[in-house]
Amino acid sequence: MTRTSEQGEGKLARVKVTRRVHFSAAHRLGREDWTPEENRRVFGDCSNPNWHGHNYELDVTVAGEVDESTGFVYDLKDLRDTVERLVLADVDHRNLNLDVDWLHGRNPTTENLVVAIWQRLTPALPAGVQLERLVLWETPRNYVEYCGE
Amino acid sequence: MTRTSEQGEGKLARVKVTRRVHFSAAHRLGREDWTPEENRRVFGDCSNPNWHGHNYELDVTVAGEVDESTGFVYDLKDLRDTVERLVLADVDHRNLNLDVDWLHGRNPTTENLVVAIWQRLTPALPAGVQLERLVLWETPRNYVEYCGE
Amino acid sequence: MTRTSEQGEGKLARVKVTRRVHFSAAHRLGREDWTPEENRRVFGDCSNPNWHGHNYELDVTVAGEVDESTGFVYDLKDLRDTVERLVLADVDHRNLNLDVDWLHGRNPTTENLVVAIWQRLTPALPAGVQLERLVLWETPRNYVEYCGE
Amino acid sequence: MTRTSEQGEGKLARVKVTRRVHFSAAHRLGREDWTPEENRRVFGDCSNPNWHGHNYELDVTVAGEVDESTGFVYDLKDLRDTVERLVLADVDHRNLNLDVDWLHGRNPTTENLVVAIWQRLTPALPAGVQLERLVLWETPRNYVEYCGE
Amino acid sequence: MTRTSEQGEGKLARVKVTRRVHFSAAHRLGREDWTPEENRRVFGDCSNPNWHGHNYELDVTVAGEVDESTGFVYDLKDLRDTVERLVLADVDHRNLNLDVDWLHGRNPTTENLVVAIWQRLTPALPAGVQLERLVLWETPRNYVEYCGE
Amino acid sequence: MTRTSEQGEGKLARVKVTRRVHFSAAHRLGREDWTPEENRRVFGDCSNPNWHGHNYELDVTVAGEVDESTGFVYDLKDLRDTVERLVLADVDHRNLNLDVDWLHGRNPTTENLVVAIWQRLTPALPAGVQLERLVLWETPRNYVEYCGE
Repeated sequence: MTRTSEQGEGKLARVKVTRRVHFSAAHRLGREDWTPEENRRVFGDCSNPNWHGHNYELDVTVAGEVDESTGFVYDLKDLRDTVERLVLADVDHRNLNLDVDWLHGRNPTTENLVVAIWQRLTPALPAGVQLERLVLWETPRNYVEYCGE
Repeated sequence: MTRTSEQGEGKLARVKVTRRVHFSAAHRLGREDWTPEENRRVFGDCSNPNWHGHNYELDVTVAGEVDESTGFVYDLKDLRDTVERLVLADVDHRNLNLDVDWLHGRNPTTENLVVAIWQRLTPALPAGVQLERLVLWETPRNYVEYCGE
Repeated sequence: MTRTSEQGEGKLARVKVTRRVHFSAAHRLGREDWTPEENRRVFGDCSNPNWHGHNYELDVTVAGEVDESTGFVYDLKDLRDTVERLVLADVDHRNLNLDVDWLHGRNPTTENLVVAIWQRLTPALPAGVQLERLVLWETPRNYVEYCGE
Repeated sequence: MTRTSEQGEGKLARVKVTRRVHFSAAHRLGREDWTPEENRRVFGDCSNPNWHGHNYELDVTVAGEVDESTGFVYDLKDLRDTVERLVLADVDHRNLNLDVDWLHGRNPTTENLVVAIWQRLTPALPAGVQLERLVLWETPRNYVEYCGE
Repeated sequence: MTRTSEQGEGKLARVKVTRRVHFSAAHRLGREDWTPEENRRVFGDCSNPNWHGHNYELDVTVAGEVDESTGFVYDLKDLRDTVERLVLADVDHRNLNLDVDWLHGRNPTTENLVVAIWQRLTPALPAGVQLERLVLWETPRNYVEYCGE
Repeated sequence: MTRTSEQGEGKLARVKVTRRVHFSAAHRLGREDWTPEENRRVFGDCSNPNWHGHNYELDVTVAGEVDESTGFVYDLKDLRDTVERLVLADVDHRNLNLDVDWLHGRNPTTENLVVAIWQRLTPALPAGVQLERLVLWETPRNYVEYCGE
């Protein structure tokens, strides 16, 4: 087997690998220390007291050098299992305000949600593999992106 | 202006016209006359007491003869306005179990939802235009279709 | 080679086969025998005198029995070539009001366009293959469907 | 719980329910009783002796009356399990010419594949639920549709 | 309400937020100081004198720190309103060569269009929010990306 | 014709331009110097000896200054022709393990494939145009990205 991941002079190629996952959840935007009127003014329909919900799409991108033995940066089955265990098991078919320990007390905007997911995933990756980027779609027209900055 | 909608011997062409709309809502599957355990057994995660939610896509298809004067079956702006007034205004950013009069007492499965939307829309169309088909996507992998049968 | 297209007792399976094609064109809705104000009132922004345009997606569906020798209803390369020769060569990167002989004098609504494409394609298919359905997307939210009725 | 599936005078609504599934497979078009040159002439690149492959998307649509008790036509989890057991387990990450008993001896055109899947699924559905339609995408531009005719 | 946007030691998370919008327009590539033949040679079908058109998709991405009070980088309704007022109101259902003041005298390639949109939007954003990236799709197969470099 | 690509003080805008292309191929993951059992353990179903396959989508992104004369970074027809000649002609409807000289001896993971395509394309671009990024989708849920690092 030819060494395939070299980029000349022994430099290994650094590739980004993405797994797209899906979850469906209810939520409500707002602050508990604001009145319903204040929440309504700032968050509009998104503060409906009886909740609303979304199909979220999440692109989890990790980066690292291509392993010379396997040709993988990171086995996508392992990445999927990690994301299912640490994120999807807690949020899919759940209420983001009420059911998720690691979102407790946070206003579940897409921005806050993507940062919280980053904090869940980044310590769980093995040495040599970095969490590179999360893209979280709330609707087919709106998405946020976070790179740990 | 040549008459364009004739199909020979004065027969007017019958065309189906579709407008795709979007809404986001919370819901929970289950029957109020069942125990939580029964609901859990039949509806699984979809019966989560704290709700979950979806981005729904709805294709509203009407059919009719092409009007010789305008080249339209039905002005899509009018169709959009009708759907927004009778459906989206009630369900978008709402809870399908709690907030929607015309779903009251119904278990909001996708099947029951599409039938209820049909019942809302079909009397609102003008003479000569028939509601032909509704396709309702609950997730990118699941959809239902109803033709009034 | 086992006979594969039989559905029991020698009945051959009837399958629908679709090729999706793409074209980009300019157009303007309106009638030449109406004033600009009348056209504006009925067709809104779509009657902008300086034109506007779309990326159209067209699904061409033919139906027929599966040929026992090839396992094809109709070779999709032949279908693509027919559609390119009779439709795309005339409309792609063209103006539907000015550049297309077979739309001359027609108000290029999506309804009129899909009927005109049907009239182009249906005589061009070989015996045993019927034009079954055309679906024409004008935007990602609007499409029309025509089955020759 | 109000009876929701009635369409007036006790007539139950008939709804179509679809689950979209995915599989990746290798195949080669051609007849074993033809020479490579004949296969090349009829099937072109699709007859490459070393195989090629696709990501297939399959929409499985069943139809039936909406159950008054559950609001379901057919539990989509059951439909998914049936399709996984009878179809995906055999074709996903497999070679359609070599690895699949129920395609043995068939030229794996999309037409023949969709008919064979129909024959697998239709006897496996419970009373009151009919297989209504299969749509099988071979590429984002080509798909076939079969309704058991 | 817990402070959610901190990334440890008081560093606020910087998130990118995107709104996807849509417009349909006619255009023609070419230079007024070139002959039709020269324009034909360089721009091909895109220089058709009678125009052609596209459905454009535009992803507008802004970046900033997550506001601790609202959990937003920038309210997407405000972003949408800004894009509608400064871009879509001028280009949707218009001719990019003839109808748009801020494109006057520019050859409306996708590259020139994305740079012009950047110049429209970047001064309109509030302090603390930067225009990060524009992605402009001309067809489902072609897109350009601009980051202000 | 106004100079359109200036960004103030004579600085030319640097824009990224992408062409999305498609190919269908068979492959099998594994190392020839490992036993089938070892390959099975590491690569799972992807090591099926009889191959499997995918529809690949490849986004080829080049970057450069916008040419003041044409308004192009790089003519997308030229980019498409380059990608078709150097990549698609070799891999479309082929077996990535057996049929492609420039993949010979490489385990055709998506990571190794994207690096190999980079090495094919980067020397073929004209002065002033850099290969910026390749995104290669193996399924609608998995993709890799390479920027030459």
